[in-house]
Amino acid sequence: MLEKTTRMNYLYDFYYSLLTPKQQSYMSLYYLDDYSLGEIAEEYDVSRQAVYDNIKRTEAMLEEYEEKLRLFQKFQERVKLIKHVKELLNEENPSKQAMLETVAELEKLD
Amino acid sequence: MLEKTTRMNYLYDFYYSLLTPKQQSYMSLYYLDDYSLGEIAEEYDVSRQAVYDNIKRTEAMLEEYEEKLRLFQKFQERVKLIKHVKELLNEENPSKQAMLETVAELEKLD
Repeated sequence: MLEKTTRMNYLYDFYYSLLTPKQQSYMSLYYLDDYSLGEIAEEYDVSRQAVYDNIKRTEAMLEEYEEKLRLFQKFQERVKLIKHVKELLNEENPSKQAMLETVAELEKLD
Repeated sequence: MLEKTTRMNYLYDFYYSLLTPKQQSYMSLYYLDDYSLGEIAEEYDVSRQAVYDNIKRTEAMLEEYEEKLRLFQKFQERVKLIKHVKELLNEENPSKQAMLETVAELEKLD
């Protein structure tokens, strides 16, 4: 569950601008502010089931956007490569070649 | 016009996966393969006006996606930063500090 929450937080972060205002509200209350379905239902004066359905649909949309655009996946790969560049830079005698190769991989990600 | 074509080529490249198959076909014939509206109309047995309307709508959608996700803008910024890192690396005594700063800017883009 924690892993799913983390993933949804990231996907929300990348794709929230493609969601409707209501989807944004429910998702951010549920995933960022840790509201329960019941609390969101009360806040918006709708049924718990309506909130649940909306959130499930939105989660599926986020996964669909990720399947199409892969922003989260590319982000993770970039983070790894940037971390590697930093490690290389912090070595005593950084290898130019190794850095150029890592930078080339960064370029290929776009 | 050339500038617009280049921009549309990029936007298409970033967001084509969010378009319908028909939108993808028209856009790629028009922008990548340089077909005229009339040629596309003939190919799909529809009116020139229908092709024109579809392409105009799709262009507006691509601009809307870019406004929301800024993938092309971030790509351009990344390209500039990566170019800078490479230039630094090709100097005789690359400045570690300058490189760490550029890499930090790259990180902030995500």
